[in-house]
Amino acid sequence: MKTLVRPDNIDRLIARFAEISEGGPGVTRLAYSPLEREAHAVFAEEMTRLGATVTGDAVGNSIAELPPTTGGQMAAIGTGSHLDSVPVGGRFDGIAGVCAGIEVARAVVEAGLERNRPWRIVAFAAEEGARFGQACNGSRAVAGLSTPEGLAALHDKNGVTLAEAMRSLGLAPERCREATWDRADWCAFVELHIEQGNLLESSGLPIGVVDVISGSSRLLVRIEGTASHTGGTPMYLRRDALAAAAECVLVCERIAGDSRHRGTRVTVGRLEVQPGSVTTIPGEVVFSVDVRDLDNARQRETVEELIGRFGGIVERRRVRLVVERTGDTSPVMLPSWLAGEIVSAAGAEGYAYRVMSSGASHDSQQVNRIAPTGMIFVPSRDGLSHVPQEWTTSEELSAGAAVLLATLLRLDARSEAAR
Amino acid sequence: MKTLVRPDNIDRLIARFAEISEGGPGVTRLAYSPLEREAHAVFAEEMTRLGATVTGDAVGNSIAELPPTTGGQMAAIGTGSHLDSVPVGGRFDGIAGVCAGIEVARAVVEAGLERNRPWRIVAFAAEEGARFGQACNGSRAVAGLSTPEGLAALHDKNGVTLAEAMRSLGLAPERCREATWDRADWCAFVELHIEQGNLLESSGLPIGVVDVISGSSRLLVRIEGTASHTGGTPMYLRRDALAAAAECVLVCERIAGDSRHRGTRVTVGRLEVQPGSVTTIPGEVVFSVDVRDLDNARQRETVEELIGRFGGIVERRRVRLVVERTGDTSPVMLPSWLAGEIVSAAGAEGYAYRVMSSGASHDSQQVNRIAPTGMIFVPSRDGLSHVPQEWTTSEELSAGAAVLLATLLRLDARSEAAR
Repeated sequence: MKTLVRPDNIDRLIARFAEISEGGPGVTRLAYSPLEREAHAVFAEEMTRLGATVTGDAVGNSIAELPPTTGGQMAAIGTGSHLDSVPVGGRFDGIAGVCAGIEVARAVVEAGLERNRPWRIVAFAAEEGARFGQACNGSRAVAGLSTPEGLAALHDKNGVTLAEAMRSLGLAPERCREATWDRADWCAFVELHIEQGNLLESSGLPIGVVDVISGSSRLLVRIEGTASHTGGTPMYLRRDALAAAAECVLVCERIAGDSRHRGTRVTVGRLEVQPGSVTTIPGEVVFSVDVRDLDNARQRETVEELIGRFGGIVERRRVRLVVERTGDTSPVMLPSWLAGEIVSAAGAEGYAYRVMSSGASHDSQQVNRIAPTGMIFVPSRDGLSHVPQEWTTSEELSAGAAVLLATLLRLDARSEAAR
Repeated sequence: MKTLVRPDNIDRLIARFAEISEGGPGVTRLAYSPLEREAHAVFAEEMTRLGATVTGDAVGNSIAELPPTTGGQMAAIGTGSHLDSVPVGGRFDGIAGVCAGIEVARAVVEAGLERNRPWRIVAFAAEEGARFGQACNGSRAVAGLSTPEGLAALHDKNGVTLAEAMRSLGLAPERCREATWDRADWCAFVELHIEQGNLLESSGLPIGVVDVISGSSRLLVRIEGTASHTGGTPMYLRRDALAAAAECVLVCERIAGDSRHRGTRVTVGRLEVQPGSVTTIPGEVVFSVDVRDLDNARQRETVEELIGRFGGIVERRRVRLVVERTGDTSPVMLPSWLAGEIVSAAGAEGYAYRVMSSGASHDSQQVNRIAPTGMIFVPSRDGLSHVPQEWTTSEELSAGAAVLLATLLRLDARSEAAR
């Protein structure tokens, strides 16, 4: 299928989406922002031009369908990823999978390949958890996990709730359950994504086939101390919220590094100090905690251990602790038969591959609740992601798209009984 | 002099200045902002109404002069403080001293008291170091310590230099040397200020007479690590700028608490994380360090020790450190003869007092380079300052103003030879 994939078209698509950003460096196109909607409009335009029927659902997912050419009634196959970014992120995370989907659609349409099944190219809404804590908002809805109450409860750092952000863009959080996909309607789904780590690069391989996706539990922690003058307040009378938060940050790092938690990753990525003045002792600090694990039980045990350790720190320092749980996604084993199809497709295309786990969360772990799902990884330069330096070459993306196309054609040919 | 001071007028003045703020909670009227200029205009209006001649200098200080009633040629006495605030600060820090000065002027003018010397009520510009790191900008200029180069080198967190901020308000940083006061022209200066600690409140005393003012050294520290995805990057490959900064914050606290540094206060009041996303490992952290001490040598030794310890932390963590020295003011002993005049005035007025040091920096420590300077402290409720909860009662302010008036009258009567 290599000869059907056009690297120049993938380059064009990547560049077109990269322009839709709050400005540099890198790309900032946050979940449930007008810019994310603009990217979905571009997706719809590209897919409509290829003859697909594009629909948007209540939570902002865009689904472009190419009907079967054989006139049959078989369940659909699909591919896709997301179009939003973290603040000051790169141009490949999520977008690479959507662009590969568009290119695969172009290839089958323009080559006039026969399709036994509907082919759906999907752009999920609001995958990044950076803004609201909760990741995979669009794919959670298709998996039937969203509730209007849940969308009204989460908020960004300016106090805007997920539901309010959605409504301001013309979406309908109160109808989020209508976005749920029907299992009977789906044969399989395959997502292409950049690795966001450096395993493929360091082993010199172009293709990763994902077996397990890490889970992620997220906390928003507020520490309330007493703000006062840095000169007038002796050290022993202080209730410094930042000193307490600094201990918590180091506890996160230490727990993730001890032998009981080998493989767990704990990160404090956001931390804000109030009032944030050189001459005022910090009165309040808010920070995020992101706990990732491939082991379901260990992920949740780590969260409870962290909360317990934070409690000890604040008690000793006579400050107050408020912990909010803002996200919780379990690790997911992807079906091995589908990984096997990707492996076979990579082999047939002549690409070396390795089976590997994913440290990052993906829409695939939600979609897998409805449709058997597989993931194809392509390399990330220096293992960097969520930063402007994020990079994957045109050749690497094209190799991934070729394996994706070959996999979808194998799935398209698969008999209905094999589901 | 108690009967000459009108608490209702002090209340009115405090309330009038408190209205000039970016909005609540508390007061935000930053150094070299349009709001600070607005407060200076109110000061000029109040003093002009009392018959004073008000002039502004190149760096934004406002000086209101009441001429001698005796027609003599003696050196001046003065009082005053500053009108700017920290972000989300209170309504008394600095402003209390300016309001007491206006009220003292009103009292002498309306009572028709004889004045042998010019009386100058001064509102200093930009005392708070919260915005530019450097404190006491207006009073440093009157003390001859400002240079155009120095004002061009310091900047706020948005990259605006002190000189640019001044110029945008019509001030003239390039002429800052013209603001220097002439020693021969000054007999003495007395500043009233809130204590910003809880020594007066806890000892039940209305008046503090300051003997030593703490020095303050300030650093702006930048730690550069590597931003990347929180899921894709294993713990051992991270260069997390926030984890490194958290260690530095705790080192600051620990050094200030050890026995060699008894009495030193070290605070990290500002700390900002980039990119500040839940799912991105922090790539850069910028934080401030404020080191206060009554001991000149220990203050500077503490700074060097901190920089050395930070260096060890970043080396071990393979991140980069950039340290900028943004402010450095030595501790100052105020002249004991002038403290003695304040003590005598407090005694004559029937107020109990204690001699005490100041943990905070004040314009007085700069003015003392030109004119012998004294400081009167009034109580701060719960010892809180630089926060909206900052409070001093109308009675406490009036007691302070009465002692200030009595002190100025004693200085006014002092013979020229006694200088």
